[in-house]
Amino acid sequence: MEIEISNINSCSIFRHNKVGSIKKTDIKMCVSNIFNKNCSDMLGWLDLPDIDSEQIEDILQFAKSIKKRFKNFVVLGIGGSALGVKMLKYAFFDSINKKEKIKTFVLDNIDGDYFVSLLNSLDLKKTAFNIITKSGTTCETITQMSIVLNLLKKKKISVQKNLFVTTSKGNSLYDYANNLGLKTFIIPQDVGGRFSVLSPVGLVPASIMGIDIVQLLNGAKNIRENAKSSSSNLAYISAHICSVALNNGLTNIVFMPYSQRLKLVSEYFAQLWAESLGKRYNRQGREVFTGQTPIKALGVTDQHSQLQLYSEGRNDKLFVFLKVKSSSFDITASDNIPFMLEIKNISLSKLLNNEFDSTRLSLAKLDRPSFAVFLDSVDEFNMGELIFYLQTMTAFMGEMLNINAYDQNGVEQSKLYTKASLGFEGLEKQKNELEKFRKNQKFLQF
Amino acid sequence: MEIEISNINSCSIFRHNKVGSIKKTDIKMCVSNIFNKNCSDMLGWLDLPDIDSEQIEDILQFAKSIKKRFKNFVVLGIGGSALGVKMLKYAFFDSINKKEKIKTFVLDNIDGDYFVSLLNSLDLKKTAFNIITKSGTTCETITQMSIVLNLLKKKKISVQKNLFVTTSKGNSLYDYANNLGLKTFIIPQDVGGRFSVLSPVGLVPASIMGIDIVQLLNGAKNIRENAKSSSSNLAYISAHICSVALNNGLTNIVFMPYSQRLKLVSEYFAQLWAESLGKRYNRQGREVFTGQTPIKALGVTDQHSQLQLYSEGRNDKLFVFLKVKSSSFDITASDNIPFMLEIKNISLSKLLNNEFDSTRLSLAKLDRPSFAVFLDSVDEFNMGELIFYLQTMTAFMGEMLNINAYDQNGVEQSKLYTKASLGFEGLEKQKNELEKFRKNQKFLQF
Repeated sequence: MEIEISNINSCSIFRHNKVGSIKKTDIKMCVSNIFNKNCSDMLGWLDLPDIDSEQIEDILQFAKSIKKRFKNFVVLGIGGSALGVKMLKYAFFDSINKKEKIKTFVLDNIDGDYFVSLLNSLDLKKTAFNIITKSGTTCETITQMSIVLNLLKKKKISVQKNLFVTTSKGNSLYDYANNLGLKTFIIPQDVGGRFSVLSPVGLVPASIMGIDIVQLLNGAKNIRENAKSSSSNLAYISAHICSVALNNGLTNIVFMPYSQRLKLVSEYFAQLWAESLGKRYNRQGREVFTGQTPIKALGVTDQHSQLQLYSEGRNDKLFVFLKVKSSSFDITASDNIPFMLEIKNISLSKLLNNEFDSTRLSLAKLDRPSFAVFLDSVDEFNMGELIFYLQTMTAFMGEMLNINAYDQNGVEQSKLYTKASLGFEGLEKQKNELEKFRKNQKFLQF
Repeated sequence: MEIEISNINSCSIFRHNKVGSIKKTDIKMCVSNIFNKNCSDMLGWLDLPDIDSEQIEDILQFAKSIKKRFKNFVVLGIGGSALGVKMLKYAFFDSINKKEKIKTFVLDNIDGDYFVSLLNSLDLKKTAFNIITKSGTTCETITQMSIVLNLLKKKKISVQKNLFVTTSKGNSLYDYANNLGLKTFIIPQDVGGRFSVLSPVGLVPASIMGIDIVQLLNGAKNIRENAKSSSSNLAYISAHICSVALNNGLTNIVFMPYSQRLKLVSEYFAQLWAESLGKRYNRQGREVFTGQTPIKALGVTDQHSQLQLYSEGRNDKLFVFLKVKSSSFDITASDNIPFMLEIKNISLSKLLNNEFDSTRLSLAKLDRPSFAVFLDSVDEFNMGELIFYLQTMTAFMGEMLNINAYDQNGVEQSKLYTKASLGFEGLEKQKNELEKFRKNQKFLQF
């Protein structure tokens, strides 16, 4: 992995904040805060690549038995319990038209049109379900579980054979699963959902799909070494760029892979960045309403949809590009098109690269800064590097913003209203507010 | 269709701009500018719902013959030539696990891993290709066409039978297609790509997939009547809200359907809004760098990914929600979960609705304004309404911002660099700049 930063130092807001001028002492302090776990008790994700061989063996054996016994595999989870798996599934299978070892579905929404129509189409006897929720009380996931349990029972299918659970030790779901005799995988207490893809949350489904999880972890280990160093620390430098950008009014960050296979990395990054950094209070309790809004894009596709705004709209965006150096498939435009002879003999990879450079250069000319992350290829090792790079970059940015990057108090209010609507006790105030809101809705019809 | 606006007037930035206070004279002037086509010569999209019955018959007959002769159908197009079709395909097929009349692919990227691996998997003899580009010179699409032409020839497959073209009359591609004897469909000159889904660009693929295009157009006609009126004009009121929001610092607009089937409406809207409104100059030539950045989200999924930022990050976002009143599939959580008894007997549609209301209310409590668009259901008529509503809302917003919503000069620079890299003539300056950029790249490795 490497990053390309020529379009950073050339832009005006970096004139007094050149990347080369980062102080080694600053890096060292930030690295030490993170890696010595001084700044939070939720830094267990740093150790995930060191998972012991026994656990790996357990996952591999389990995955093997699932692949042998089932035709379909359904993940029931949402947010951090879904996005990593979706990203890996898309990168290794969907986008290159390759089939997973068993047909895999990640159902991270509760819309009946989607959830029910899919369940209806599956032979449930031949379908394994993985419930994933760290707290064990995620409303959407437990509701999905209740539905699936009932469907399995109705069809006299063994819950113990077809359903397993990934959660944290000792919570109600964990106890429930154990009482039922379900297989369980453990999410460490000190690993938050959005940092959990290299825990059993991601590793078990990845292994079932046919992804080499050992290589994934090796990649993560490799970039972890880099993230500890005080020179050419790619994650730190990237976070530094983002924080200077934010301090100078670039309140949005466009994340734009120039690779179809990496399309969903944007979704994964968007959660990491939004949920970790979008915070009302800093560590001293001062109201800051900080964070940088992630915007998902895809090259070259969105050149024909978003680039106009990126070029001529408000100059409030930092651009992060992602590029893969070598693709597995390529082809050359070998047929003469008489009215466009120039494209003859151009390969798709060359055209993609030309457009990538053209977009970056044209944005730089408009004083709109960008940097680019290059992967050698889309394989497990490189994906492991990319995942850990994005996680550490987020952690460093959290330090620079002086906020707690590991909580998510902002969603509590909405959750309370939902719980109130479901009749949870002690929420009369919220229930009344919600009822009042519903009564006072103002509909405009025609 | 209706819109719900109680969370607009209750928020502080609308205190002096209440929705109820819109002047009828303002609406009338704006409506007249658009519908009398005073403000642009690119307003042909307003007439698309009036397509004559002969043309409809031609499309239906052609679609029938394609469905009869082929197993696969591939659209080659990008931006406005792809997003509408992708949105319809997802809404009517992919998201509810229903099969199109023939297996359909929209290839709107040039990444070889994606493009080549897909083509390799298809029986080309049984595959129809639709080239869609209004200008006829879209680099990506013509390159794809060159590749496909060559593959067909190599396999001795008749180009005339397997390939047809949608473009505007009289351009080089149109002449080329006619010389080759290819079937062509015409995009009117005064309809821009992002406003073209109700032209043959969208109608032909929709019809081939099995979508009722007459109902789609009926829905569009219905909302067009509303968009001409000076009371309860939903598109105008929506644009008014967006423009007040933008003028008061809400520079981002989050578009968040609470419906899996409507997920890709966000992509469609994002192009309309970004490319139409992201403009450097206003109509008097003054530099304004205006526009509002669209952010794609999905309920309830992104509550577990983006809502934290939406609640606690910068207050710079207006929220547009989309909700469907009735879903086709529903199910009740009927199995007892002992540690969460409250979810028993809740249906998915009820839970979705509760979460939808909870999110809107919690944002309003934080003084973050939102409005919601309600569709009766996801059928062709309602999709037609939604499409035309979003188009007219964009047009009205363009008038309010006093910009030309129908050009896209901001992407020219990037296109010139790409053309220079391909050896197009007369672009030596750009070629040199690009070479210099490439030479001066600064890679950080580890």
